[in-house]
Amino acid sequence: MSASSSFSTAALEALETVLGPEKVLRNPGEPYDRDSSSYQAVPDCVVFPESTEDVQCVMMLANEHRFPVYPRGGGTGTSGGCIALGGGVVLSLERMNRLISIDTENLVAVVEPGVITQTVRDAAAAKGLFYPPDPAGMDASTIGGNVATNAGGPACVKYGVTRDYVLGLEAVTPTGAHIKAGVQTRKGVVGYDMAHLLCGSEGTLGIITQLTLKLIPLPAAHVGLAAVFPSMADAMRAVTAILTSGHLPSAMEFLDHKCLQLVGNELPFTVEGETAALLIVELDGVADQISREIEAVKAICTREGANRLMPGGTEEERERIWSVRRKTSTRIREHAPITISEDIAVPIGRIAPFIELVPDFEREFGLDIFCFGHAGDGNIHLIVTAPERSEKHRVDDGIRAIVQVVLEMGGTLSGEHGVGEAKKHLLPMELSPESIRLQCGIRRVFDPNGVLNPGKVFC
Amino acid sequence: MSASSSFSTAALEALETVLGPEKVLRNPGEPYDRDSSSYQAVPDCVVFPESTEDVQCVMMLANEHRFPVYPRGGGTGTSGGCIALGGGVVLSLERMNRLISIDTENLVAVVEPGVITQTVRDAAAAKGLFYPPDPAGMDASTIGGNVATNAGGPACVKYGVTRDYVLGLEAVTPTGAHIKAGVQTRKGVVGYDMAHLLCGSEGTLGIITQLTLKLIPLPAAHVGLAAVFPSMADAMRAVTAILTSGHLPSAMEFLDHKCLQLVGNELPFTVEGETAALLIVELDGVADQISREIEAVKAICTREGANRLMPGGTEEERERIWSVRRKTSTRIREHAPITISEDIAVPIGRIAPFIELVPDFEREFGLDIFCFGHAGDGNIHLIVTAPERSEKHRVDDGIRAIVQVVLEMGGTLSGEHGVGEAKKHLLPMELSPESIRLQCGIRRVFDPNGVLNPGKVFC
Ligand SMILES: Cc1cc2nc3c(=O)[nH]c(=O)nc-3n(C[C@H](O)[C@H](O)[C@H](O)COP(=O)(O)OP(=O)(O)OC[C@H]3O[C@@H](n4cnc5c(N)ncnc54)[C@H](O)[C@@H]3O)c2cc1C
Ligand SMILES: Cc1cc2nc3c(=O)[nH]c(=O)nc-3n(C[C@H](O)[C@H](O)[C@H](O)COP(=O)(O)OP(=O)(O)OC[C@H]3O[C@@H](n4cnc5c(N)ncnc54)[C@H](O)[C@@H]3O)c2cc1C
Repeated sequence: MSASSSFSTAALEALETVLGPEKVLRNPGEPYDRDSSSYQAVPDCVVFPESTEDVQCVMMLANEHRFPVYPRGGGTGTSGGCIALGGGVVLSLERMNRLISIDTENLVAVVEPGVITQTVRDAAAAKGLFYPPDPAGMDASTIGGNVATNAGGPACVKYGVTRDYVLGLEAVTPTGAHIKAGVQTRKGVVGYDMAHLLCGSEGTLGIITQLTLKLIPLPAAHVGLAAVFPSMADAMRAVTAILTSGHLPSAMEFLDHKCLQLVGNELPFTVEGETAALLIVELDGVADQISREIEAVKAICTREGANRLMPGGTEEERERIWSVRRKTSTRIREHAPITISEDIAVPIGRIAPFIELVPDFEREFGLDIFCFGHAGDGNIHLIVTAPERSEKHRVDDGIRAIVQVVLEMGGTLSGEHGVGEAKKHLLPMELSPESIRLQCGIRRVFDPNGVLNPGKVFC
Repeated sequence: MSASSSFSTAALEALETVLGPEKVLRNPGEPYDRDSSSYQAVPDCVVFPESTEDVQCVMMLANEHRFPVYPRGGGTGTSGGCIALGGGVVLSLERMNRLISIDTENLVAVVEPGVITQTVRDAAAAKGLFYPPDPAGMDASTIGGNVATNAGGPACVKYGVTRDYVLGLEAVTPTGAHIKAGVQTRKGVVGYDMAHLLCGSEGTLGIITQLTLKLIPLPAAHVGLAAVFPSMADAMRAVTAILTSGHLPSAMEFLDHKCLQLVGNELPFTVEGETAALLIVELDGVADQISREIEAVKAICTREGANRLMPGGTEEERERIWSVRRKTSTRIREHAPITISEDIAVPIGRIAPFIELVPDFEREFGLDIFCFGHAGDGNIHLIVTAPERSEKHRVDDGIRAIVQVVLEMGGTLSGEHGVGEAKKHLLPMELSPESIRLQCGIRRVFDPNGVLNPGKVFC
């Protein structure tokens, strides 16, 4: 579908008339042509709805004039989900950014989709409450984008994913109807779980216009440690031992030996051994409880072979540990002309065996592969790099081979980043034709004219 | 649809030929004609599949011969969801009851749907792991039934509902296809969230044939207390204060003054005051931590006006407290000829205001209404009773009026029991026509011939 064929001057004028010209941007450029993936496309225009009614108007016009609409939150998505490939209208939710309430009596937050994730967390914390999901891009991602992608983060191991905090939502369907789904209560089982169907649907079933989020009591304190193990297998044995000894850390992150070779010099201690792996463990809860618990975790790490342990009790020590973890992906990107991020997940017990296979893939496809991620939930961020632009096809072949092994191990090709445009070609490796048929059927029920984020995810 | 028109001798013979006669029960009676609701209907036959393939065969024949199929787990449902109203085939999952694995390395349980809920919990606990959902009927309900209804329980306030523990599932669709949905990992965002769409779909979108459940570390210890407050409003202030002081109890249950009048004599202390309310609080975690925490909870209860506090530290003391809570519903049922259970939920802060309105409904509709339930998540079990059989229509009118108020308060008409047949007539009070239209559309995508649990929930 080309931009010109899908979007007419009449459509543009209708948008300006209905919304008012101040809510329509003609000739848009950066940032609306990109997100955090490698995809780029300039939309015909960008609209900035300020209310649910505005969103409804856009979708009604989209159905009348048959132009495609691409919802956009913070544009931090890594799979091209909000890019107007082929032209059309980007619908930015940035002006629908009211934090309607942090309700301490009912332990819920009611927010518009354009609120930045960190703002929700801060507003809850200011009232002694906790919104746990902590995707690493939370300074720039929106809460609506998080729900649309069902974002995860380090806290998942203890607290679950974004979906687990969505009680209810309001959305505009692709045909322009306003629906409420889910509840404002802790529980509700009336009809199908439409709220969670929209959650993770990557802007293909509806545009989320309001959210009711579950909040929980804010943990009083945090404590952390970093442990270096001789190998990934040792580190993963420690992870399993920690979890099966009754401890539920609020984060368990790892870096493999290749990442350590890259950022190890920034650690406050020297890392020895070619195959060393770093494990970062955090606990949250009541202060004296977790300070005792972290001792038990340390003992487990030592027992499983950790040869360096750095406590991270103070805020400063914690920050030092996390900054190394956070720098990793940037440092890898500086390092190679081609980098592709995958965020596969495998069952926890398969992390070590999977990482042991990585050198084989590197050799076979001429790649350099860095692994880090969430040890507590099996979500491994793979940054696949190659030396030359011309090697792109080898990267792609390598990724296919990796995904094949991941699926054989009972894993998934995406733990948190979603399919969007980037992983569409891999999706049939994971989902059966019948499952895809049903999902496309659902999509058609919502979007008979195919105007919302067409071409993304599948179909 | 009448039994004779929807089920032919040819269909029965085809079932016997394909499955083998030992998997088909002709002329069935109890218990396959009932569940824990007031509905009853004798099916034409009951089938007992022993594998996913068996289930597929039944559904294929159902589409060929156009007979309705009603999936059945433990039959503890309270809304008639598994009853073959109008005849047809009940498909009992009782023989698909293998506990395939409790995997300590990956922290998952893989089970067939017919396993009893308590069995899953016990098997996990035996390996130091925890499957938190604890619906009160868990000695007899199946795990498949729990997922199909998205069951809740007292532990919800801390641990969430059944849905939050479903990572992946296998199901047979109404047309007989076998699909896998979700993941075996902690996270996964490939395509729509089909696993959670099936969860809570009350046996209308597919027959669940296998489940991968998330397990977490087993808490080391439990501690509890019971507190009597002068009024429900005082008790609810304590609930809010507990939650906003950083405590996350593993249960917070309440009984209103009418329940106390009925079961209060079994309590180990005398309850004074016409309007008294009982709050039961439990904490789980590391022993010395929670023994300190319960002191803080006690102090909050006292500050908010509790005039009796009974610690429930020992197993025996805890059991005494819980037995009173559990007896309540049976005792109410013994008490009146007509009893209808509703399980509405309201935002936590509305529990007390809602309960204050109950006497108005009692007067206006000539009812006796008992309230108890989950204070931590706003889920109130209402047992509506009336003195005479002939008063049934007044009960119905009263329930409609109550549901109306619940919805105005931002609540839902069912927190955990589901719609099934029992609440179908109330569903349009909560869901908009557009939402129902979309949901019926989804159902048709799965079940074009309308053979799976027809007539239930909606459509
Ligand atoms: C540095 C960095 C770190 C990251 N770390 C993580 C991480 O730890 N975990 C993780 O899960 N992801 C992570 N991501 C990916 C990204 O942040 C998430 O996918 C995030 O949820 C996207 O939010 P957004 O508001 O930026 O959405 P966008 O990128 O704008 O859009 C993402 C998708 O959601 C849709 N969408 C957006 N808003 C709405 C709406 N209101 N209604 C309907 N559809 C909508 C879009 O159409 C698109 O398909 C990271 C990204 C970066 C750049
Ligand atoms: C004493 C008592 C206490 C209860 N307490 C609670 C409580 O605390 N919380 C709560 O949520 N509920 C409670 N309930 C209700 C009931 O136990 C739950 O709804 C339970 O989840 C039903 O499970 P079951 O196996 O008995 O399902 P059934 O009653 O057999 O069926 C329930 C529904 O699920 C469908 N179904 C069953 N198995 C499958 C399958 N494998 N695939 C697809 N569909 C299927 C059926 O078609 C039906 O629609 C209670 C009931 C009783 C009698």
